[in-house]
Amino acid sequence: MTATPLPAVDRTLGVTAPRGFRAGAATCGVKASGRPDLAVLAADADVPAAALFTTNRVVGAAVQVSREHLARRRTMRGVVATSGNANTCTGPQGLADAREILAGVARELGCPADALLLAQTGIIGRPMPMDKVRPGIRPACAALAAGPQADAAFVQAIMTTDTRPKQAGVRLDLAGHTVTVAGATKGVGMIEPNMATTLSFLTTDAAVGPDLLHAMLRAAADQTYHCLTVDGHASTSDTLALLASGAAMPGGRPVAEGSAEAAALQAALTAVCADLAYQIAADAEGGTKVIEVLVTGAATDAEARAAARAIANSPLVKCAFFGRDPNWGRIVSAAGAAGISSRPETMRLALGDVVVFEGGVPVAADAQALARVMAGHDIRAHLDLGAGPGQARYLTCDFSYDYVKINAEYTT
Amino acid sequence: MTATPLPAVDRTLGVTAPRGFRAGAATCGVKASGRPDLAVLAADADVPAAALFTTNRVVGAAVQVSREHLARRRTMRGVVATSGNANTCTGPQGLADAREILAGVARELGCPADALLLAQTGIIGRPMPMDKVRPGIRPACAALAAGPQADAAFVQAIMTTDTRPKQAGVRLDLAGHTVTVAGATKGVGMIEPNMATTLSFLTTDAAVGPDLLHAMLRAAADQTYHCLTVDGHASTSDTLALLASGAAMPGGRPVAEGSAEAAALQAALTAVCADLAYQIAADAEGGTKVIEVLVTGAATDAEARAAARAIANSPLVKCAFFGRDPNWGRIVSAAGAAGISSRPETMRLALGDVVVFEGGVPVAADAQALARVMAGHDIRAHLDLGAGPGQARYLTCDFSYDYVKINAEYTT
Repeated sequence: MTATPLPAVDRTLGVTAPRGFRAGAATCGVKASGRPDLAVLAADADVPAAALFTTNRVVGAAVQVSREHLARRRTMRGVVATSGNANTCTGPQGLADAREILAGVARELGCPADALLLAQTGIIGRPMPMDKVRPGIRPACAALAAGPQADAAFVQAIMTTDTRPKQAGVRLDLAGHTVTVAGATKGVGMIEPNMATTLSFLTTDAAVGPDLLHAMLRAAADQTYHCLTVDGHASTSDTLALLASGAAMPGGRPVAEGSAEAAALQAALTAVCADLAYQIAADAEGGTKVIEVLVTGAATDAEARAAARAIANSPLVKCAFFGRDPNWGRIVSAAGAAGISSRPETMRLALGDVVVFEGGVPVAADAQALARVMAGHDIRAHLDLGAGPGQARYLTCDFSYDYVKINAEYTT
Repeated sequence: MTATPLPAVDRTLGVTAPRGFRAGAATCGVKASGRPDLAVLAADADVPAAALFTTNRVVGAAVQVSREHLARRRTMRGVVATSGNANTCTGPQGLADAREILAGVARELGCPADALLLAQTGIIGRPMPMDKVRPGIRPACAALAAGPQADAAFVQAIMTTDTRPKQAGVRLDLAGHTVTVAGATKGVGMIEPNMATTLSFLTTDAAVGPDLLHAMLRAAADQTYHCLTVDGHASTSDTLALLASGAAMPGGRPVAEGSAEAAALQAALTAVCADLAYQIAADAEGGTKVIEVLVTGAATDAEARAAARAIANSPLVKCAFFGRDPNWGRIVSAAGAAGISSRPETMRLALGDVVVFEGGVPVAADAQALARVMAGHDIRAHLDLGAGPGQARYLTCDFSYDYVKINAEYTT
């Protein structure tokens, strides 16, 4: 939980809102829908970069190559993304294809290939159709521009089954400079919704060194992306990348760790990530509601997290929210099975502002008030375990017929 | 994994098939359906007993009382079960109600109340309707009898959303005595027995002391109930109880630990538990298929178990099976996210007898053979991680529209 209150975000700000970045896209035909599927985000020069990747042991070729590049150098020229094929479980050929894509973009940008990160999302276990991707590289790079249209082109090209583009930004004053933090993300399958594959690309024109940038990205992710679940199935391609051009602070000193500027920038970054994560939950496959699971009073933050995650991932809890059923026994029992050390006698559960369980016994709740809470689109379930200072917050969605439809009826 | 091959089970054998037991049931009106909801299983005398309960921190009053009784004494006269209300999150009144039910049955049976175990299943967070339960106690005890009709009455009275009664037994020869092991179970949702809302009652007329009985029950559960998941939501009421009357071995010495008889009895007990667990998976809420997830070649058994559990609990994997979609990328990626140390390059995945992924790359599988596998009712997914001797087997079901329907509309 952050101490600093988070600033409001502006969803008209996309990845090129911070100075020093351009974006472009092309349609290669990897997606069966015929929508744009190759996206390039380029900084004007090599800039400090940080990225977090999936912790899945089975990872796509893009994640392997990107990790390799980030291990070799701390500044990057840009990021390339393809959608429609995850290039995962594709062996040595998949790796070669990933490298070939980056080599092609590097030629156009005039940078070394290892100054680029790659992210890929889509079906697992199919070879990359390189005959389609190759011809798209030059047009995508030729289209590089800054501004709302470029932002829109970029975010469209990373979508799979997303029904809405997802971007957000924050402008803030940093030691007299107007700085912008912005990002674009995608989440949840396509015609091949293999998994809730999240790709997220963040930019800022603040001047930040790579170490602090990485620490800030991790802190933001821990409170946002790492507390988001649609179906508990971690993808093989998840990538969260952040580039910092410094273009809004020409001649200024980079933001220093522990400074007031660092705190303000962290809050802006966390606010952007929180809003992008919210947009993913709100567009989740088959989801009709966004559920915020807040657990407080746990013995430790880790226990709070385990309880929040168990509640957010329980199909029984998610189905109840879909059915507007205030079936709080499912919430309490999901927490109880999560390895926590609390006892029901000290627990207190509220749905919205209606307390339903306290001190080990049901509370006679106002049925009409409860029905109003359950009918809402955004619902908070707040479980206080009454055992200590630990807390955690998870964001999830409900579970509907459409989740089953989307994930059963598509056939490989 | 057991070394001894398991004997075949006979589903006509119920809880009174072993000598020395009688069962009875009554309709109290706790269940809205008007079906029987109070069940009593009584031994002719106090007999060695063992039981396993849910590991959920939030437990029903019945589990609290049963644990208390088993801590106090090692022999039991019988087991009482109610269905339709879990008597969980009901505080001190719930505990008092649980004790009152047992006191009533104890009066009828002429035994102390602490010689009885109690199991309760149903909705969480509602007071027990004692005005309905009290009048049912005498008729349930008056109905106590042995034979197929008594077995049927007992198993009907423990059902909630089950669509079919579930029982199984094995007859075996033990040192010249014909011994029977039998059991009845219920549960189709909120099932991930660590100990699930699984209630399971096992009987045998073998002579076994309480320590060995407990060890045998745990060994059987570890391979069966503890490797079963419907929705990854461990219940607050799970109870697996075993009573051994010794009535088939009059004057014989109890089965000794490490003996050939113990091994044969263990195999029979495990076979009964395995079949009951299969019957739960086959009757799972909204399930249309039984999926066996076999993981071999893991670095350790614990890693195999984590991978098998992750696959069995993935909504994406379960929806794919419902849609007959051989979407193996979901299986491999679920395992990859389970904290295993294996790499995709050493993995091999087969659906039924069709290998679909090997050595890090897809295998060109016979589409017709694969379609036949996916159309089946019982499907095995065998993932070999190629890293060591660890193995595990999980049983689960697919995930259909009806799971959502049942759990969105089952309203509190």
